[in-house]
Amino acid sequence: MKVVITGGTGFIGRMLARAILDRGALTGPSGAQEEVDAIALFDAVAPPAPLAGLDDRVEIVIGDISDRDRVAGLVDRDDISVFHLASVVSGGGEKDFDLAIRVNLTGGLNVLEAVRARAGAPRLVFASSIAVFGGSVMPAVVGDTTKQAPQTTYGVTKSIGELLINDYSRKGFIDGRAARLPTIVIRPGRPNAAASSFASGVFREPLNGEPCALPVKLDTVMPLLGYRSAVAGFIALHEADAGALGDDRTINFPSHAATVEQMIAALRRVAGNRRLGAITVEPDPGIEAIVATWATETEFARATALGLPREANLDEIVEAYIEDFLDG
Amino acid sequence: MKVVITGGTGFIGRMLARAILDRGALTGPSGAQEEVDAIALFDAVAPPAPLAGLDDRVEIVIGDISDRDRVAGLVDRDDISVFHLASVVSGGGEKDFDLAIRVNLTGGLNVLEAVRARAGAPRLVFASSIAVFGGSVMPAVVGDTTKQAPQTTYGVTKSIGELLINDYSRKGFIDGRAARLPTIVIRPGRPNAAASSFASGVFREPLNGEPCALPVKLDTVMPLLGYRSAVAGFIALHEADAGALGDDRTINFPSHAATVEQMIAALRRVAGNRRLGAITVEPDPGIEAIVATWATETEFARATALGLPREANLDEIVEAYIEDFLDG
Repeated sequence: MKVVITGGTGFIGRMLARAILDRGALTGPSGAQEEVDAIALFDAVAPPAPLAGLDDRVEIVIGDISDRDRVAGLVDRDDISVFHLASVVSGGGEKDFDLAIRVNLTGGLNVLEAVRARAGAPRLVFASSIAVFGGSVMPAVVGDTTKQAPQTTYGVTKSIGELLINDYSRKGFIDGRAARLPTIVIRPGRPNAAASSFASGVFREPLNGEPCALPVKLDTVMPLLGYRSAVAGFIALHEADAGALGDDRTINFPSHAATVEQMIAALRRVAGNRRLGAITVEPDPGIEAIVATWATETEFARATALGLPREANLDEIVEAYIEDFLDG
Repeated sequence: MKVVITGGTGFIGRMLARAILDRGALTGPSGAQEEVDAIALFDAVAPPAPLAGLDDRVEIVIGDISDRDRVAGLVDRDDISVFHLASVVSGGGEKDFDLAIRVNLTGGLNVLEAVRARAGAPRLVFASSIAVFGGSVMPAVVGDTTKQAPQTTYGVTKSIGELLINDYSRKGFIDGRAARLPTIVIRPGRPNAAASSFASGVFREPLNGEPCALPVKLDTVMPLLGYRSAVAGFIALHEADAGALGDDRTINFPSHAATVEQMIAALRRVAGNRRLGAITVEPDPGIEAIVATWATETEFARATALGLPREANLDEIVEAYIEDFLDG
């Protein structure tokens, strides 16, 4: 079978591709495990350097996700699964509303229609976000029964994506699943336009010996999940039996609620004798305003029942990053 | 100022136009009461006969709401308000998914963009529905803090519309409000493709001396609102101060939860000596399946605080219909 990963040259897309290559097979539309012979990483722009850790089963396809024909051409086999990760992120969506609608809403519809056009209702796993929660109705702990009240355009488009995944699945057009992600850390490389970018930066920059200027205060709470668990969760959600998902195909992913202060404490514990770059607090009102609308703690009983993992604690998340990106 | 009513030749659209003509003015983008000098009733097909009770301020405009330029051309002044009522209904959406997406989602985006293109963020009132609720997470009573979990394509597109109304308003592109309607009764004329059509038919057909075959059982519960209150609610919601709406622009409208048996009892009480057509129960599994996903009782504290009315009881709803359509 073929696997398409939109936003596939991004960090999570690449890690997911590697995990699928290692695994070798996924549940296909037939319901049986099928060997993965091709992975297409679809993205808006070509990566600046060749991607490491992949092999000749992997093809990079560059295109505009808002082009319906382009997306239809990508989903060109019936024995296929799609992981739809492409998205304008939170901070980016606040800066360019029209781009967020074009990429996240029109692009999302194009992916749904492309999968629907195949025979056998292939599986489609959509990356959603806890940014679907917010506003004055938001309870202290958010979960699978909490009202969606997003306060960013990003969160609105993710909420719309969840609704469409449910309806396309209910109609039998696709076998959809949505992964409602907390903030995924520790992303390697450079900061991005996500308002949550600092949650990786607070670990990454100091470990690289670089200074980190935090745009939020130390008591800011974020629900975090390590990228290893996020990738394992994407695959577990893809593999889950549709009957176990019921009439709501969106699963709140596991997380650890942590203050920025706790993140820094975990960093210092795990870093040991490493020389760390300095951390300063330089509040950015724009970032603070977005982060203030987000949930701080999540409930994830359905995810746990489906076997979706989380790390034991923040320390394990830091250890994994050091192993994968610094000592590797 | 000008008022545009999409779906304007339908029953609620016509009643709303008449109420606005009687009123003579609405709050314009200036914040002050402005005289309404033009009302455009936009619809997909021309009405079969001239519409009664209107005057030369009213123009009927026929066009396709999924045509962005057509809709932009309709919203052709800055001193304008739009009531967006056009929609493929619940039963219709289950039969033709693509039409529901084209009219309700693409059409809705066209209306939002047309209003956004005007100066001064004009008011836009969107007709949503309690069909946004449903599924295994639905509580016994639904309200403004209940998770949206629609189980029809109609409900999904209404939920998406609510999310977009909030976001376009948050961005300051428009001053949007969404009216989350229960089943509105008693609609005159013929049955339509809404799965809730029987809730009008159970009153209307017997009063017209015609038989009524109910597609659901007598203990089926529906939240009902009379059309007079629905129209008054639309205007009250349009007139409400934006500050009173907070970060959720969707208001659950008032209703009365009633069994079909209670509807029939109210009909018999009010009808007195009128000769009524026979009522029989002939369950339609397709209609029953849709209705079974809907909420039966609604909470509407925010609506009440905003001054949105409901009738005192079902009897008052039947009396209004007789006055407006039988004895008029």
